[in-house]
Amino acid sequence: MPHSPTPAPQTSPAPKTLRLKMAQWQGGNLPAYHFGAELLAWLAPPSDTPMVEVPVDPPSADPLPLEDGILAKSRVLAQARSARVLIDAHAPDRLVVFGGDCGVDLAPFAYLNEKYEGDLAILWVDSHPDIMTPAEFERAHAMVLGALMGQGDQDLADIAARKVEPAQVVYAGMDEMSPLERERLTDWGIPFIGPDQLAETSAPVLDWLRQSGKKHVAIHLDLDVLDPKGFRSLLFNKPGSDNAEWADTPQGRMSLAQVVRLLRDVAGEVEIVGLGIAEHLPWDVMNLRDMLAELPLLSD
Amino acid sequence: MPHSPTPAPQTSPAPKTLRLKMAQWQGGNLPAYHFGAELLAWLAPPSDTPMVEVPVDPPSADPLPLEDGILAKSRVLAQARSARVLIDAHAPDRLVVFGGDCGVDLAPFAYLNEKYEGDLAILWVDSHPDIMTPAEFERAHAMVLGALMGQGDQDLADIAARKVEPAQVVYAGMDEMSPLERERLTDWGIPFIGPDQLAETSAPVLDWLRQSGKKHVAIHLDLDVLDPKGFRSLLFNKPGSDNAEWADTPQGRMSLAQVVRLLRDVAGEVEIVGLGIAEHLPWDVMNLRDMLAELPLLSD
Repeated sequence: MPHSPTPAPQTSPAPKTLRLKMAQWQGGNLPAYHFGAELLAWLAPPSDTPMVEVPVDPPSADPLPLEDGILAKSRVLAQARSARVLIDAHAPDRLVVFGGDCGVDLAPFAYLNEKYEGDLAILWVDSHPDIMTPAEFERAHAMVLGALMGQGDQDLADIAARKVEPAQVVYAGMDEMSPLERERLTDWGIPFIGPDQLAETSAPVLDWLRQSGKKHVAIHLDLDVLDPKGFRSLLFNKPGSDNAEWADTPQGRMSLAQVVRLLRDVAGEVEIVGLGIAEHLPWDVMNLRDMLAELPLLSD
Repeated sequence: MPHSPTPAPQTSPAPKTLRLKMAQWQGGNLPAYHFGAELLAWLAPPSDTPMVEVPVDPPSADPLPLEDGILAKSRVLAQARSARVLIDAHAPDRLVVFGGDCGVDLAPFAYLNEKYEGDLAILWVDSHPDIMTPAEFERAHAMVLGALMGQGDQDLADIAARKVEPAQVVYAGMDEMSPLERERLTDWGIPFIGPDQLAETSAPVLDWLRQSGKKHVAIHLDLDVLDPKGFRSLLFNKPGSDNAEWADTPQGRMSLAQVVRLLRDVAGEVEIVGLGIAEHLPWDVMNLRDMLAELPLLSD
């Protein structure tokens, strides 16, 4: 019997992942977000994946200018555009983003929605819906998902050439919100799956993903989805403050283990092509760093 | 008038400082001390000062052997000897130590006491006196100052060729202790200056230093001297634990700012030649690192 030539195995090239460090702090009007990103990137498991850094104005205690109702709008826009230039230069299949305030996911998720031509679910793991507009709030980090959907400030929205449709979006870990936010989500038909529903199972999210029919998912992980009693490196936990400013702001109720389980379950269901981690505020670490800088023998 | 040759200016060479990273964890029987040292060293202000690292067995969850009443005594001894070899090789005038458990200061302070021939005050900034012996406790990190004074386990004590005299020692930030500890300090005549006495002024410590007549000081800074409500990266604050184990253990009552002020005031009074920082337990950071290692796209 004559040998038939063995066909070359059908292999697709390994997907190309890019790590993006984006120490944006102006969107939350808090210099500490900058260091949060630095530490987060330092903690990431070592990898051969390339890491690029979006240039960000260094932290400053000077008041940020209010531009069209948004603090430091021109900086936030410029940083999102820089992020997009870096992403386009690498043209990755997958993106990991180390933030920074929540706004760091604007350009990356816009890129992914274009790349996958809308075949992208967006899983927003957060205690807050991030659909504010300048009419209600002045910090861009609370506007990012709205901007991806074409809402609110038009310049921010224009970062996303292809608008995210409400049917692409689901929230996880969130069930408290303002009446206005609730009304908007209801109007748009975007579901939210609360922490109690996810305490023992990831099924509600997996069911939604299945019903969405999307083959790819980008995950926004705002660390404030975590219970601040178990994870203290959050906005609401600043030591030496009564944190009265946040008394009416919903806080997270998920554990680290629940978040890990949720994301791993999602990875078993659809292809994760984006993961942005945001709002890391390691107060102790910053305070310790500042103390070391003042100590004799170290500051000499 | 003929020129007389200009004499060379009388300059003494700049003192030589060495930074020592010692991620010892066995002395506190807690692998987390290892990462605490890594992060502490990462946070230190950048410097041209050389940094050397004492080889330490990597953290492990396996039970440590009890040897002569001390957990992992042979490892703790071997690590102290390694530290001494490294220090002797550099022969510095000043030492900064990044720990690790409190035991990291055994070899460095022994070296300094020999180098300055006893013209050395020891300022122990801590919530605990660290003068236990194997008869009462099995963790070496609670024995280090006792060992420097020749007390307790003889092998640990032998790390210090020149014994520290009780008259060289003062505590700061500590006023609660067990009856046994109080009896020992009274017998030895070692004063302790509590956090309330130091809340507004460093004077009690400065007065003691002046009366001691010592021209050099080595400072042991156990971070547990800090109030755990303001600085959470401490033994007593493990998230998800009721920390019942520490219910009867004295906890710190100083603020970061008070510690900085105290050490800077001391630097104005005598020459600081040693600074060891110990017992850093950044729970959130470790938990976040462990979470990142489990997440899709990061663990792939």
